[in-house]
Amino acid sequence: MEALHQKIREQGIVLSDQVLKVDAFLNHQIDPALMKLIGDEFASLFKDSGITKIVTIEASGIAPAIMTGLNLGVPVIFARKQQSLTLTENLLSATVYSFTKKTESTVAISPRHLTSSDRVLIIDDFLANGKASQALISIIKQAGATVAGLGIVIEKSFQGGRAELDSQGYRVESLARVQSLKDGVVTFID
Amino acid sequence: MEALHQKIREQGIVLSDQVLKVDAFLNHQIDPALMKLIGDEFASLFKDSGITKIVTIEASGIAPAIMTGLNLGVPVIFARKQQSLTLTENLLSATVYSFTKKTESTVAISPRHLTSSDRVLIIDDFLANGKASQALISIIKQAGATVAGLGIVIEKSFQGGRAELDSQGYRVESLARVQSLKDGVVTFID
Repeated sequence: MEALHQKIREQGIVLSDQVLKVDAFLNHQIDPALMKLIGDEFASLFKDSGITKIVTIEASGIAPAIMTGLNLGVPVIFARKQQSLTLTENLLSATVYSFTKKTESTVAISPRHLTSSDRVLIIDDFLANGKASQALISIIKQAGATVAGLGIVIEKSFQGGRAELDSQGYRVESLARVQSLKDGVVTFID
Repeated sequence: MEALHQKIREQGIVLSDQVLKVDAFLNHQIDPALMKLIGDEFASLFKDSGITKIVTIEASGIAPAIMTGLNLGVPVIFARKQQSLTLTENLLSATVYSFTKKTESTVAISPRHLTSSDRVLIIDDFLANGKASQALISIIKQAGATVAGLGIVIEKSFQGGRAELDSQGYRVESLARVQSLKDGVVTFID
């Protein structure tokens, strides 16, 4: 997606061979117009997949997910990392290790919002080692629902997440595929 | 805002005299079409206020904030509750106590994204005791920026947050003002 590639080139900061900082338009400050383009693109890619729900993780996945949900006309659920006093029932949960934060956390979704008839599109801001995506897949399966595909804003293709999802047979659509961050330069696939 | 009042009546759950659960459309599962209506309403209310940035707190503030930013054509910043390894610089921060979660936390914004020329609209999902809003006001002032107003999706008017903001002279626009949650019934002001 050219508008996203351009934004990454202009405002992305390569912190190391492994870490791309995009807090100017995606992870901290958010560009709403770009999120709209991203949501429209995901909606176009998955419009024939019979999506009934979108699932993401707080917090950076919410903006692209909500724009996709607006276009497709379906609800968005964001998995929570911390338990709230207002989420009192038994929750569907899975463990996820964050390489960026060096912490393990539990993500959870209320079973009231996912049923076995749901066809779910997972949306997330980043795909790196795929731990967050695998946790969401686990939760969706616990609900008996179907994972119809994954829409990723930025994929770090040199890490293992994409290859694992491919080998599991999931459809993954990434709008920017980063081949390398070597020498402080962002190189895209294609 | 009638569409919001109706949604609260239909899908809100009164957990106690103090706690209204709206995880079916705002805090966990999100209704994107309703968020669009909410964003358009905030944009209409503040269209003449010279807004240059929107500030919210992760996670439930992001959806209404991004829709408001889309309409007004300005960036959205979400204050982070946990430090990320990619937010490495000195941060503007403030402490906030959550009555719902019974925890004190630090919220932070990178000074790279807020300047003294910014006129900031604060958007949040709930206004109760006002601790989150006061923390955001503190951060915005630390940046030397101006708080142009606050847009709140649901205000619990019987708690102290609104009165304190009024007494400080801030413009507060709440789309649903809850007068009482007594006896399991949501009563709105007006």
